[in-house]
Amino acid sequence: MGMAEPNANLISSDKVEGTSVFDVRGDKIGEIEHLMIDRVSGMVRYAIMTFGGFLGFGESEYPLPWKAFRYDTNLGGYVANVTEEQLRNAPEFNEDSWRDRDWETRLHKNYGSAPYWEDATTMRDPFPRY
Amino acid sequence: MGMAEPNANLISSDKVEGTSVFDVRGDKIGEIEHLMIDRVSGMVRYAIMTFGGFLGFGESEYPLPWKAFRYDTNLGGYVANVTEEQLRNAPEFNEDSWRDRDWETRLHKNYGSAPYWEDATTMRDPFPRY
Repeated sequence: MGMAEPNANLISSDKVEGTSVFDVRGDKIGEIEHLMIDRVSGMVRYAIMTFGGFLGFGESEYPLPWKAFRYDTNLGGYVANVTEEQLRNAPEFNEDSWRDRDWETRLHKNYGSAPYWEDATTMRDPFPRY
Repeated sequence: MGMAEPNANLISSDKVEGTSVFDVRGDKIGEIEHLMIDRVSGMVRYAIMTFGGFLGFGESEYPLPWKAFRYDTNLGGYVANVTEEQLRNAPEFNEDSWRDRDWETRLHKNYGSAPYWEDATTMRDPFPRY
């Protein structure tokens, strides 16, 4: 999609729930339950997935780093670049996890994603190295 | 808030509705109805405000460019850097507006915000000028 084209990818925050998630082979494995958004920067940081029985993961919620997803316009959903092993090894999650930077660090490490707060530091670097 | 601190600003996409919006003097003028998110980049592009009678704007929805807002942690809500005149001059809005780049351009111009798709072009510049 060219940047000069109308943006068909805008979605309301209250309608993002239920978007399909596929594995890297293109098989549907679950859905987006909701997103976690940084209300200061306006950037999505996590997507919380449910598997609904796929892969035997039951109804639990699995938060994944935003960077583990790629939106596929043909599939009309997200491709999650994660393995079953990563999902099974994910650090335990509860509502307090969102205020636990150590948990966030372990989660990103588990899924092989660079922590988003390191991006922000780089972007704000007052002495960039050219 | 330091970037090494736990992030207290993460909010669920299904809970962002109802966040207070203040004017630049700190007076509450309305609420966030919902956000419009780019599902490819994961960036919030618009916040849709309702005034609930404030300033005589009734119950209509007013989409504003995301950049017109600043989150104020002390107020616990967004400060909207817009004037009554800008709100009254805003281009007419309907559900098709989200697929109308011309409407998006007029909206950003009305509120004096640089269009987000120009940011993206700059960020993706393959020949950056140092």
